[in-house]
Amino acid sequence: MANFVSRRQFTIEWAHCDPAGIVFNGRFFEFFDWGTWTLFGAALGMQPSRLAGAFGIIGMPLVDVSARFLAPARFGDVVELASEVSAFRRASFDVDHRLSVRGELAVEGRETRVWARRDAADPTRIRPQPIPEDIVARFQVR
Amino acid sequence: MANFVSRRQFTIEWAHCDPAGIVFNGRFFEFFDWGTWTLFGAALGMQPSRLAGAFGIIGMPLVDVSARFLAPARFGDVVELASEVSAFRRASFDVDHRLSVRGELAVEGRETRVWARRDAADPTRIRPQPIPEDIVARFQVR
Amino acid sequence: MANFVSRRQFTIEWAHCDPAGIVFNGRFFEFFDWGTWTLFGAALGMQPSRLAGAFGIIGMPLVDVSARFLAPARFGDVVELASEVSAFRRASFDVDHRLSVRGELAVEGRETRVWARRDAADPTRIRPQPIPEDIVARFQVR
Amino acid sequence: MANFVSRRQFTIEWAHCDPAGIVFNGRFFEFFDWGTWTLFGAALGMQPSRLAGAFGIIGMPLVDVSARFLAPARFGDVVELASEVSAFRRASFDVDHRLSVRGELAVEGRETRVWARRDAADPTRIRPQPIPEDIVARFQVR
Repeated sequence: MANFVSRRQFTIEWAHCDPAGIVFNGRFFEFFDWGTWTLFGAALGMQPSRLAGAFGIIGMPLVDVSARFLAPARFGDVVELASEVSAFRRASFDVDHRLSVRGELAVEGRETRVWARRDAADPTRIRPQPIPEDIVARFQVR
Repeated sequence: MANFVSRRQFTIEWAHCDPAGIVFNGRFFEFFDWGTWTLFGAALGMQPSRLAGAFGIIGMPLVDVSARFLAPARFGDVVELASEVSAFRRASFDVDHRLSVRGELAVEGRETRVWARRDAADPTRIRPQPIPEDIVARFQVR
Repeated sequence: MANFVSRRQFTIEWAHCDPAGIVFNGRFFEFFDWGTWTLFGAALGMQPSRLAGAFGIIGMPLVDVSARFLAPARFGDVVELASEVSAFRRASFDVDHRLSVRGELAVEGRETRVWARRDAADPTRIRPQPIPEDIVARFQVR
Repeated sequence: MANFVSRRQFTIEWAHCDPAGIVFNGRFFEFFDWGTWTLFGAALGMQPSRLAGAFGIIGMPLVDVSARFLAPARFGDVVELASEVSAFRRASFDVDHRLSVRGELAVEGRETRVWARRDAADPTRIRPQPIPEDIVARFQVR
């Protein structure tokens, strides 16, 4: 058994880059977010934008994130982002991201997110929810 | 002796927030970047935009970054970002950031950055440089 | 009688700038958005984030926007953004923005926005609403 | 004879959207920028990131931009952006952008840009340059 991996290719744009001519670090977290939604959409077989409605969640808010930058990415670079859930816990999970430039690992990151809904009593609060088992099962491939 | 700490207040804007109504995680890394430049400008007594020219660096590229999200920040929240260098090494350093909302810690982060210049032989490459001792000294307060 | 003008100063950050070393054009529309919320908060005497709840609106979506770029803004520039409503119509209004760098006009823009709520019958639709007269009156100064 | 049109499809991401659940207006100018670089790359038959080096330009800075928002775009929408140069002048040109959601025009925009290089005497200044005729010719199709 292995983790379901979703891959996505895209091009680094002019607007992603800073005055040093390389991708500004905050952009990679936007790319990771793209990767996580794409992964969940692919694993669960539905448009990512339908996940909230289908499962009654407000989203998958982050509680922790980290990244290591091994090589810069520049305007025009075609990159591949590989994303997979490396751990499921009761109400939270880790998503690992590896972004490669021309086949070489350039950035690796890990997001820890919670499966969350609005609190019924106080809708300004967000409550972690147990992740349904049949969702977890979809992220395993044989 | 203690670390020099720079503090900066600002308001969370509509455009910082995502469809869940909270600050999108990637934005915090933009805030951390603001904090680091502000810290270096304050500690070294010059406009942050003058640092590159004054020290012959291309910038202070990141090699590692992490953040923990303890509480959400929302449109209209007045936040305070406190930033300090928690460690200097030969050519790299750590900047710790604590973002508070109404006095409570909401996000904490750590950036590891390098003091870098363009390679003389190959200007597309970035080379870490030893951090001058008199720069390091400016980040200590008695 | 004159228009109420709100002014706001801020510094151009590293992350606002692109590989040419100047503010990326899309950022100015984020600055204009900051300016419009600030203007409405100041004119109406409430936190901008309270406007939606206080008036039952979903926000003030744009229908039209334009900008002229007269001079570049760069990392470290302290800029001033002056914003005012130049016209109110039944359910829409124009906000004029003038961004100055060191006292010289660098960017001027105009947003046309609607005063809008969610459609009661179909909450995915946004409906323009008549702007209350006492709101309009607050944007005039004697 | 007709204008060369470049088309590009992409998906609206969570991070593109604001608390009203629709794409934040500033993002469209980022999309237009993607469109212009893609158009020039396609028409001139080179990677967009090579244009600066190939023609000695610093980039194609904007002097004017406008957009009309006819319908909102939301998370998960697959959009098509069609971009073409609608006018070439001596040192400037207009790029027209039409962004469609499910086949319906949602946003239309126009950028006016200059063909620019750094001033030889003062590298902090940007100078418009005559656009080479053989470049202009590439944007016409028979």
